[in-house]
Amino acid sequence: MKVSVKVPATSANLGPGFDCMGLAIPLYNTITIEETVLPGTGVEINVLAGEDMENELRLDHIPMDENSIIYRAVELLYNSIGQTPSELKITIQSQIPIARGLGSSASVIVGGLIAANELLGKPADEVALLSIATEVEGHPDNVTPAIVGGLVLTSREDDGSIVYKKLDWPEEWRLTVCVPDYELATDISRSVLPKEVPMQDAVFNAQRMGMFVHAIHTKDAELMKLALKDRLHQPYRMKLVPGLEKIIANLRHEENVLGTVLSGAGPSILIVSKGNNQDKIKSIVRDTWADLNVKVDIFDTTIEKQGATIITHEDD
Amino acid sequence: MKVSVKVPATSANLGPGFDCMGLAIPLYNTITIEETVLPGTGVEINVLAGEDMENELRLDHIPMDENSIIYRAVELLYNSIGQTPSELKITIQSQIPIARGLGSSASVIVGGLIAANELLGKPADEVALLSIATEVEGHPDNVTPAIVGGLVLTSREDDGSIVYKKLDWPEEWRLTVCVPDYELATDISRSVLPKEVPMQDAVFNAQRMGMFVHAIHTKDAELMKLALKDRLHQPYRMKLVPGLEKIIANLRHEENVLGTVLSGAGPSILIVSKGNNQDKIKSIVRDTWADLNVKVDIFDTTIEKQGATIITHEDD
Repeated sequence: MKVSVKVPATSANLGPGFDCMGLAIPLYNTITIEETVLPGTGVEINVLAGEDMENELRLDHIPMDENSIIYRAVELLYNSIGQTPSELKITIQSQIPIARGLGSSASVIVGGLIAANELLGKPADEVALLSIATEVEGHPDNVTPAIVGGLVLTSREDDGSIVYKKLDWPEEWRLTVCVPDYELATDISRSVLPKEVPMQDAVFNAQRMGMFVHAIHTKDAELMKLALKDRLHQPYRMKLVPGLEKIIANLRHEENVLGTVLSGAGPSILIVSKGNNQDKIKSIVRDTWADLNVKVDIFDTTIEKQGATIITHEDD
Repeated sequence: MKVSVKVPATSANLGPGFDCMGLAIPLYNTITIEETVLPGTGVEINVLAGEDMENELRLDHIPMDENSIIYRAVELLYNSIGQTPSELKITIQSQIPIARGLGSSASVIVGGLIAANELLGKPADEVALLSIATEVEGHPDNVTPAIVGGLVLTSREDDGSIVYKKLDWPEEWRLTVCVPDYELATDISRSVLPKEVPMQDAVFNAQRMGMFVHAIHTKDAELMKLALKDRLHQPYRMKLVPGLEKIIANLRHEENVLGTVLSGAGPSILIVSKGNNQDKIKSIVRDTWADLNVKVDIFDTTIEKQGATIITHEDD
């Protein structure tokens, strides 16, 4: 039996929504799990480069990191029904850049879980999958949109349950995803965050979250410009992402740009805009990073409404 | 010339919206400003008790506190057009309890400003009135709903401007306002707040604000139950409001109660509910406070959609 699951990339935080908001992006990892025929062969994990990608940028760290988290996710699911995974061949076809703040790890966790769940005859429902994925990833803000697609507001409640709400991203708002040619591990990017923050910064982010959600519901671009700001994580991560501060400054007064934010823990940058001047935005980003000798992949896109999808299910 | 302005009470914070959210309540102060006929008589300020109120609870501290803030607001408006107030008789007809977290001071600031602005031939627009009112009050979360009515998300931006958005409060959600027979000065209630808060509490409130605004737009009562929580101000103010913790606990599992929050800086408590079991809610609050020998005025109400209104304008 063989199951393949296609899982979108995700961009978490989106400015004020640190650790509680994320959206899916049309860039995919495909995770295939196959039951192998020979007993005793154990679990084998392979990583293939996506065909369209500049592979040299992306495969450096897949094997160890991604292997361990996908195995851990699959193992937790098996354990939840009293089993242990064995005789599995897991293949990751990778299109999502690694350690760039685009939810690569969330995508393999989610893909592994959903494929294994399908193989096992769907013992886990969405709630259970969300819960295991969050446990492995640490936070629900990438795994939730990876599973359900779209723009998602999400939290882990005191009882461990994951609550999420999908919000309708206005069709006319574009996403420009800028991926620099250096990596930034999430644990390093998280280590620079303080344990305590000024009260006024906490109030600021709560205000902006309120504005963000209202701007989404009312498609209010001017309000979104005020909302796409953050004082809880971006200021501390600026030094880990050379160029970010300058790119934000250079785009601040650009027509139609609603905001420039760090994607997840960085170093990728997400720019939200309306209208059709994405070429100008791209060239500003490219030029700013070129001054620092940073190469960048940039693509214009829109939100991916679809979450993880089973694309192959072959019974023997 | 004589102008009277009726201004609603307000309840700020509403759980997660510390310093950035407030709503108007149908309980009013009426502020009248009259140009006196004799030059050189200066500014005279009188306070009258509202007819329907148990006055002994409410008039203790009006004269000094409210006098000074209403005068300061009126003076700032006059100064903004190069004048100084003189020969004015200001009368406050007070129905809003003082120092209870119901926006009494915001209401006299707003009433004084709007009445004086009318007397002067409306030199200030809404933006200017909001800005002066916020300067005198310190925060926009009470003065904004006092001016514009309804439920308001509000912030003071870096350039000093006040941004606000009105949100539609679902008609079927009731407000139970519980006013205990003791006062709590806002400056004391503010002095117990820390300058720094745990990062996870900041993230928690931002999540809840997102949930709150989404729950309002989608009229989602279950989500509102999760949203009406706070970690930025209520935990620190618990000790100043004996009974609050117990009332929250006693109402937590009550059917139809969506949340129990401190109104503004307290000590009043605001309970949001749906359905028609407000009598049960009232008796739980009354009994809990009775155990602590605290008397309480409780009234069921709904949101006041109308902000400050000029009810009399007599030219000589």
